[in-house]
Amino acid sequence: MVIVQQTSIGTRVCGQLCTRIAPISDSFDDTAEREQGSRFLPRFDSAGLLTAIAQDSASGEVLMVAFMDREALDATRATALAHFHSRSRGRLWMKGESSGHVLHVEAILVDCDQDALVLKVRPAGAACHTGERTCFYRTLDGETLTRHDG
Amino acid sequence: MVIVQQTSIGTRVCGQLCTRIAPISDSFDDTAEREQGSRFLPRFDSAGLLTAIAQDSASGEVLMVAFMDREALDATRATALAHFHSRSRGRLWMKGESSGHVLHVEAILVDCDQDALVLKVRPAGAACHTGERTCFYRTLDGETLTRHDG
Repeated sequence: MVIVQQTSIGTRVCGQLCTRIAPISDSFDDTAEREQGSRFLPRFDSAGLLTAIAQDSASGEVLMVAFMDREALDATRATALAHFHSRSRGRLWMKGESSGHVLHVEAILVDCDQDALVLKVRPAGAACHTGERTCFYRTLDGETLTRHDG
Repeated sequence: MVIVQQTSIGTRVCGQLCTRIAPISDSFDDTAEREQGSRFLPRFDSAGLLTAIAQDSASGEVLMVAFMDREALDATRATALAHFHSRSRGRLWMKGESSGHVLHVEAILVDCDQDALVLKVRPAGAACHTGERTCFYRTLDGETLTRHDG
């Protein structure tokens, strides 16, 4: 069977396997399209993950960083609430699913090579499971961590 | 042979292997120490990497995200210039080593479980290799990426 795939940079014809081995966006050199184009072509790493940074849309503070697989990305876009993939638990989790401190996603920024996102968020409470507003509540000072107000 | 190891949360005695298999900070449950303590105990993932976010210290804009191994972390701290580990090239790189657009590191924030850093930086030029000020120069709008001014 011959498969014809239509992409933003042209049509290609390939054998059956090409769609099974990798998504079209990972199977040929599409650097220019990813960097300069207007198509969303997320590039998941070898573990199937993107890096996702949650940034407070009002204060600009970086609140947390986590990873998203396709499922978490789709759930985030469908609900406008931040979802991630837990590497330790091996499952989808919605930020705030137990605490109620969800992150309302107001915008999603995409980086040059489309392997990282910034979520501009409005937090419903402390973003950190420790109860801190942000996970980044300490500054490295020599060998010592110091709590800060920022 | 018996090895006695002094840690910030006490002394433990263990067999020879414990120091060979893993660093002390990864070999027992030190969650409370990592989250609440003042000791810097970076937690590298299974690939030996931390996530490092570069944020403009003046504007608050997220400029880029990359990964640091121990070597990149040490080089960053020693020089106050951002260094990362390139996963694709498998080597240390200093941001700006070819473009001259280095990132001067003014502060390092550490997250709750110490597997991610925010570098507060003063960029010497465009942070993105595409020539953009930040790598996050596009917003996801439906299925389309739109350039933005932020």
